Amino acid sequence: VGTELTEGRIQDAHLRFFGQELTRLGLTVTRCAHLPDDRALFRAEVDRSVAEAEVLIVTGGLGPTSDDLTREVVAEAAGVGLHYHPEVWSALEARFAGRRLAEANRRQCYAPEGFVLMANPHGTAPGFRGRIGGVHVYALPGPPRELGPMFRDEVEPCLRREISLSPVEETRGSAFHVGESNLEDALARCSRPGVAWGTRIADDRIVFHLRGGTARDREAVLTDTQALVGATHIRRGDRGAAELLFDALVEARARLIVAESCTGGLLSTWLTDIPGSSRVFDGGVVAYSNELKQAILGVPGTMLLTHGAVSKEAVLEMCRGALRLGDADYAVAISGVAGPDGGTEDKPVGTVWIAVAARTSEPTAECFLFRGSREAVRRRSASAACILAECLVTGKGWKPYVA
Amino acid sequence: VGTELTEGRIQDAHLRFFGQELTRLGLTVTRCAHLPDDRALFRAEVDRSVAEAEVLIVTGGLGPTSDDLTREVVAEAAGVGLHYHPEVWSALEARFAGRRLAEANRRQCYAPEGFVLMANPHGTAPGFRGRIGGVHVYALPGPPRELGPMFRDEVEPCLRREISLSPVEETRGSAFHVGESNLEDALARCSRPGVAWGTRIADDRIVFHLRGGTARDREAVLTDTQALVGATHIRRGDRGAAELLFDALVEARARLIVAESCTGGLLSTWLTDIPGSSRVFDGGVVAYSNELKQAILGVPGTMLLTHGAVSKEAVLEMCRGALRLGDADYAVAISGVAGPDGGTEDKPVGTVWIAVAARTSEPTAECFLFRGSREAVRRRSASAACILAECLVTGKGWKPYVA
Repeated sequence: VGTELTEGRIQDAHLRFFGQELTRLGLTVTRCAHLPDDRALFRAEVDRSVAEAEVLIVTGGLGPTSDDLTREVVAEAAGVGLHYHPEVWSALEARFAGRRLAEANRRQCYAPEGFVLMANPHGTAPGFRGRIGGVHVYALPGPPRELGPMFRDEVEPCLRREISLSPVEETRGSAFHVGESNLEDALARCSRPGVAWGTRIADDRIVFHLRGGTARDREAVLTDTQALVGATHIRRGDRGAAELLFDALVEARARLIVAESCTGGLLSTWLTDIPGSSRVFDGGVVAYSNELKQAILGVPGTMLLTHGAVSKEAVLEMCRGALRLGDADYAVAISGVAGPDGGTEDKPVGTVWIAVAARTSEPTAECFLFRGSREAVRRRSASAACILAECLVTGKGWKPYVA
Repeated sequence: VGTELTEGRIQDAHLRFFGQELTRLGLTVTRCAHLPDDRALFRAEVDRSVAEAEVLIVTGGLGPTSDDLTREVVAEAAGVGLHYHPEVWSALEARFAGRRLAEANRRQCYAPEGFVLMANPHGTAPGFRGRIGGVHVYALPGPPRELGPMFRDEVEPCLRREISLSPVEETRGSAFHVGESNLEDALARCSRPGVAWGTRIADDRIVFHLRGGTARDREAVLTDTQALVGATHIRRGDRGAAELLFDALVEARARLIVAESCTGGLLSTWLTDIPGSSRVFDGGVVAYSNELKQAILGVPGTMLLTHGAVSKEAVLEMCRGALRLGDADYAVAISGVAGPDGGTEDKPVGTVWIAVAARTSEPTAECFLFRGSREAVRRRSASAACILAECLVTGKGWKPYVA
């Protein structure tokens, strides 16, 4: 509930959260309605939900302003009045320690009669739970960092206690550098009776889950899909490309340095997004201009003139140059045409060279042709660089996937 | 419509898109319902919407599989059959040029009788539009890159033609490094009768709009808010921090180099997200380890020992070192404690030093204390670096905001 949602001023994140959590618990979400702060529309939705579902979760509308209607609307729908909870006011006073507490906050001390308060350690608005007819009704505050803990600590235990649930068991996997239709095709060919799958597209991969059947069936589907598509491309679990590389470096107690051109720092950003990445990641060079490729990485100017910056020769030199800058054990270098301009007949937009090297061996390079927008080409390049480097660090070896 | 939404496998982006677009056109969104691929639930929602609203937009469910129910459900609700459109098949054959076209795609050639097809230049599924009773019904494909253009090219012109709309006029602004409650307070103090405002939080700023009143009133609110908070922090329009810096560099025909520590490449990533950034951005160094700060940027090891990597001295040296690497006109350097670990009493998590320099002058540095998660600290650091550098390039000078 909130006009900020229906006018598109903020991004909803609750549907995704509840969709995942409730599905995991074995519940089916039959409708998620987003409504403006309008009493009549809100009341109609509560009445309809109570007539159709077993569980109703309301989020938002618990704040101190006159736009916050959840307390009143749920009480009306339940045919009860509002009850004042003085302990909420005391808790607010303690929380505001010394600062002036607005009288508007008084509204937050009310809940429908017969409903039980749910504590909110991360904000001012408590939630509440109770029943309308036989339907379980939960009201939670809107901010995700308040709602998440309240769901985990109050709503989930209550649902498990009061409703007969069959939690869904699932096996998760990730597909790297495999198109959605090819993955669908592979999963269909490898599936077992009773095993269903679903996919979702993440920044750098497709995450899939297998549900139904026995754990052994799901395991067989995953193993067969790996055998069909390749173990480089199909991974158990839902770690991202940068996380897989991070894990491999930690395991090998090794350090990495990078040289990025077309990705412009994206690979470094992904790696440093991981807390603790400084243990394995030295940093590197964003050699976006040819001047920096020469000045910092020592790529010869004549080579850039002869072969171009997007070439096997240049990316191998970038990789060697990165290793010379410090004492990292591994290096990776990326140079490509991210678009939308800069493509030629020989090197169309999406052409990307990636080189990887260990200090103890000569670098090797692979050429990719990625489709999609500038942003997609950059993401796919960074993802491929992570997987190539991870394969080198773990000694697995990398093989291209051919559908 | 889609079980991938109600099970939380993908993030919905349509509510936000339609919320903004329809509000702009002067329409009120009274409900946005997300439904699983379930014929009965879908049909009930269409019937209810047609009874309550003037316009119904359905997205998703136009693909080639048996889960794709929109054609059938809308035809049933309208009480009509399905009509085969052979021109859709021809267009699909042309699109697939040579490749095998699955018979399943035949489903995409049908639309409810009496409905008009809407072309989809970005995908295989056409949309359709028509009426149920007096209600305008539009069915659009789910993928955002197909839906967006179809809304702009087909739905919006049709709505403008067939419904009496009062489009909302608005003035947009962005607030950098100002908290949400401080911005609210400032807008409230500067507002004029009839002018309402709304805010939404973006990666690197708060975007706000002013609606209602005359253009002159809204202009006065924006100008007064700038005067109150500071012209560095309140900007006209909705350009992001990296875009403002890019614009300033283009205008000055100048080039930039960067040295990043705690942001780990995020500033470079933002700049290179902008097509054409190679005109003004040379790249730089992700000096995540102290070794690279010394080896590439020439920060003396004794200085790092004495003052630490997160210090005014170190960040000034990083900035000088970046300028020495090439012939860029400007440099910016960032060093801080992004967390979650690494904070001390003197330098808690969120402490960030940022230096900016022109080739023709000595660098200057500012210290910030950002609150929030590792990710938030990194985003705020990159954003502040862009604004500091932009103020230097444009000669505006930077002043901290004090609430």
